[in-house]
Amino acid sequence: MSTERVRHFQEELERLKARLLEMGGLAEEQVRLAVQGLVQRDRALIARVLTSDHPINSLHIEIDSRCFTLIALHQPMAVDLRSIVAAVKINTDLERVGDLAINIAEAALRYANHPPVKRLIDIPNMATIAQTMLRDALDAFVKRDTALAQQVLSADDELDALKTQIFRELLTYMLQDPTTIEPALDLILISRHLERIGDHATNVAEDVIFMVSARDVRHHSADQPSK
Amino acid sequence: MSTERVRHFQEELERLKARLLEMGGLAEEQVRLAVQGLVQRDRALIARVLTSDHPINSLHIEIDSRCFTLIALHQPMAVDLRSIVAAVKINTDLERVGDLAINIAEAALRYANHPPVKRLIDIPNMATIAQTMLRDALDAFVKRDTALAQQVLSADDELDALKTQIFRELLTYMLQDPTTIEPALDLILISRHLERIGDHATNVAEDVIFMVSARDVRHHSADQPSK
Repeated sequence: MSTERVRHFQEELERLKARLLEMGGLAEEQVRLAVQGLVQRDRALIARVLTSDHPINSLHIEIDSRCFTLIALHQPMAVDLRSIVAAVKINTDLERVGDLAINIAEAALRYANHPPVKRLIDIPNMATIAQTMLRDALDAFVKRDTALAQQVLSADDELDALKTQIFRELLTYMLQDPTTIEPALDLILISRHLERIGDHATNVAEDVIFMVSARDVRHHSADQPSK
Repeated sequence: MSTERVRHFQEELERLKARLLEMGGLAEEQVRLAVQGLVQRDRALIARVLTSDHPINSLHIEIDSRCFTLIALHQPMAVDLRSIVAAVKINTDLERVGDLAINIAEAALRYANHPPVKRLIDIPNMATIAQTMLRDALDAFVKRDTALAQQVLSADDELDALKTQIFRELLTYMLQDPTTIEPALDLILISRHLERIGDHATNVAEDVIFMVSARDVRHHSADQPSK
């Protein structure tokens, strides 16, 4: 590529990253508001989450289109190509996080129709961990920081432990008092949605490690140097 | 591209498609066996599913690597580029289907520790629909058949209706008899895993429509012709 074309490519790549960060910020905010709506039993806030997925969906389409244009116009190689393919995948993950925020809001709305089962502590904790994982994973992408990506992978165990703990506790409530069955089911679903948000952050972190080092850390495989 | 290079590219693209079909077949088989293990309370079969994810995971890494090589060596444009980026995404979806089969098997193993809650009819039905959606979506990819892809999108509603019906029925059981709470919870989780398999088939179908027509059907957006 000529110097001019290289400069243009790098500028476009920066713009792409900025849009992904923006999308990540929106998805994270949706998760935060959905869980806040759940805890505060705030139907107006929950309703706002349910109708706020449009900006994320527009960005999803725009980012995909930017990725295609970048590959088609600049025919990037090595780490540049891996960055753009990573962006395509991260884009999909972020869009799913937006969908999961909607799923959380839907369950929160049903939950608000019943008396509260318990004071919610672990679910907001799960939400905080999942949001941090997502933010760190995107930071790792933008800065090509594999150490930070590795940190995201470790945080996933914490989320998994909390999910199991929440399940056991709610099961006890359900067995003792059948009137808690319906609302407790919604809390269990919400904890699983939060776990899946952590899984998406994990996907992003794995993509970052592959992008930087061409090393595939998925499926605990041995090192796989790229061609 | 020279004629020779075009021929080589098309051959490699066919090989890529064949590997994706193979992976789809493996994922579908894992789902089928997991649900069969659930229905027949066959622990040996369930155990086999739990330890059989290795071939899918190897294919996941191999297919990703084929996609990178194809883009880097041949710098494809238009529908060819869209096909390869679609393959990257479909690869991710199929790997998740494999993971979901494992999740179903894990829940089936727990379910086998309790007396059966009911005769299972709707869950095997959901599994059949989800498997058909997956197979049709991959066929649509290989044949670039948007009509078939559209059919996959329609089938998703059926899956959703069955999931809601299963939930309502199991909730009734749980409210009437607390000893059914734990096993019924696993059936509810399994129905959600099957619903997600349908979601992955839907993703594949949407990618096929975009690949063929450069029209983005996600988020019910207006037509978006590509450049």
